[in-house]
Amino acid sequence: MTEREFIARVRELLGEPRGRVLVGPGDDAAVVRADGAVCVTSIDTVVDGVHFELATHSPADVGHKALATALSDIAAMGAEPGEAYVSLALPRGFGEASALELVEAMRALAGRTGTTIAGGDVVSGPALYASVAVTGWAATAEQLVLRSGARAGDLVGVTGELGGSGEGLRRLRAGAVRDDDPHVVRHRRPEPRIDAGRALAAAGATAMIDVSDGVATDARHLAEASGVAIDLDLDRLPLAAGVAPDQAAIDGDDYELLFTAPPDHREAVEQAADVTWLGAVRAGAGVVLRAADGTPVALEGFEHSG
Amino acid sequence: MTEREFIARVRELLGEPRGRVLVGPGDDAAVVRADGAVCVTSIDTVVDGVHFELATHSPADVGHKALATALSDIAAMGAEPGEAYVSLALPRGFGEASALELVEAMRALAGRTGTTIAGGDVVSGPALYASVAVTGWAATAEQLVLRSGARAGDLVGVTGELGGSGEGLRRLRAGAVRDDDPHVVRHRRPEPRIDAGRALAAAGATAMIDVSDGVATDARHLAEASGVAIDLDLDRLPLAAGVAPDQAAIDGDDYELLFTAPPDHREAVEQAADVTWLGAVRAGAGVVLRAADGTPVALEGFEHSG
Repeated sequence: MTEREFIARVRELLGEPRGRVLVGPGDDAAVVRADGAVCVTSIDTVVDGVHFELATHSPADVGHKALATALSDIAAMGAEPGEAYVSLALPRGFGEASALELVEAMRALAGRTGTTIAGGDVVSGPALYASVAVTGWAATAEQLVLRSGARAGDLVGVTGELGGSGEGLRRLRAGAVRDDDPHVVRHRRPEPRIDAGRALAAAGATAMIDVSDGVATDARHLAEASGVAIDLDLDRLPLAAGVAPDQAAIDGDDYELLFTAPPDHREAVEQAADVTWLGAVRAGAGVVLRAADGTPVALEGFEHSG
Repeated sequence: MTEREFIARVRELLGEPRGRVLVGPGDDAAVVRADGAVCVTSIDTVVDGVHFELATHSPADVGHKALATALSDIAAMGAEPGEAYVSLALPRGFGEASALELVEAMRALAGRTGTTIAGGDVVSGPALYASVAVTGWAATAEQLVLRSGARAGDLVGVTGELGGSGEGLRRLRAGAVRDDDPHVVRHRRPEPRIDAGRALAAAGATAMIDVSDGVATDARHLAEASGVAIDLDLDRLPLAAGVAPDQAAIDGDDYELLFTAPPDHREAVEQAADVTWLGAVRAGAGVVLRAADGTPVALEGFEHSG
């Protein structure tokens, strides 16, 4: 297959552009109708040996993960997914069949989340790299949830379960795992919480971030951006099966949403998404992890100070 | 310098977001006010050993080139530059000083072209890799120039000179060049033809593409997208000093603009930009390069058939 044939095959796979995409792949740039007042954009890159290993991830896993991690940022803004622009660097010998498998997994996730793959670029490189720039659209900037909106008195919540992806990674590294192990699936195929993000935004979340670095570290990002302190109760962390609380606090790549909301929005938030309340925001700086009796807990790999 | 300090330094370098950027780097995604009816977006990637070599390019050259090649696609649409989203993969030992030099060169080109660097991502990787997604905005889709608008009877023109970048690359590979050799500068620091692109669009260009693969090959891209044939007169190619016509037809990376326009827009086009007329569009398919007497010329490295 020549490069031209490969690109033609990718375009065929992606199908005709739809919705707000007026001109899709094939011109100098894609053309999109701006049908929201604001556009949010994030770019993310995954690299073999750094963010995944081809030894334990199929090309489809990589395609899914590259788009999922980018879309997770759109979810954390509370925005509606828009378009994805994908740049792949393929190492010698990767093969067109693998590249098409990667693109097909991306297309499947895009279809399921209402995202259109509107443009891209394929080059060669020393290792597999996938960069994804993804947009989201909103009618007004006020509908979006930034990291900086947490206020003293707000509650802190998180969607889903924590620690599953990290446990899956440990199992993959230990070898001899089953492909249907839910923690392994969780690690290979993270799910961007698009619907939860939009619902939490509508329910009055004041600040939001996706849990990529670990809930303790991501809470610190929220605390710093908002100029507040956050207390997290270790015993309340929603644990994936078999994961200890201190591990779940530090493990990353779960791509759940960590958010804050005023107490009087508590019911609206609980109706919007499957959430667990973890703690509260107070005046100050930094993140403190607390045991059930309220005493601060020191965790290896996490510094309390902001 | 820790990664956090490095990112803080980059943000300081980039300054406060301006214009349509409501939220710049630091949140889950950038937020941009959609103040055009349509948004054009392109993503481009450059990799060490493939698109440049660190042996002959400074980090600043790489930063410039990565943004310039992305912006060149915005120029070829006739759009106004918008925002850039930059993802860097840095190899071990690249060093923060080099990374900041790369970002500073990008910032300088962004400033000069009215582009805002609104977001980004830094990861580690086995080789230096820079992926840039760039947007452009236009009031209406009709203001943009696609590859598909060339019609039989249109004239074919190109901005600037051709072959300089390829000659610069040959000199770099031969070693012992002066840094101020204009062909070497041209290769290391290509200039996106933003103003020319917008002016040509306003003057009635019907199709446009940037010359990245070589004017003969890029003419074929226009011919294929428009469903027409293109004749190019080899003797009319605007040659960089010391470059032969057959070389200038095939060498890429000049990032000039190749376009078509109806004959009755000839004067308007000539007033809009510094252009050279190269040939004409006719019904049919493919690109034919012709000598001064009209006979087709075969060039090694270029197939005539579409």
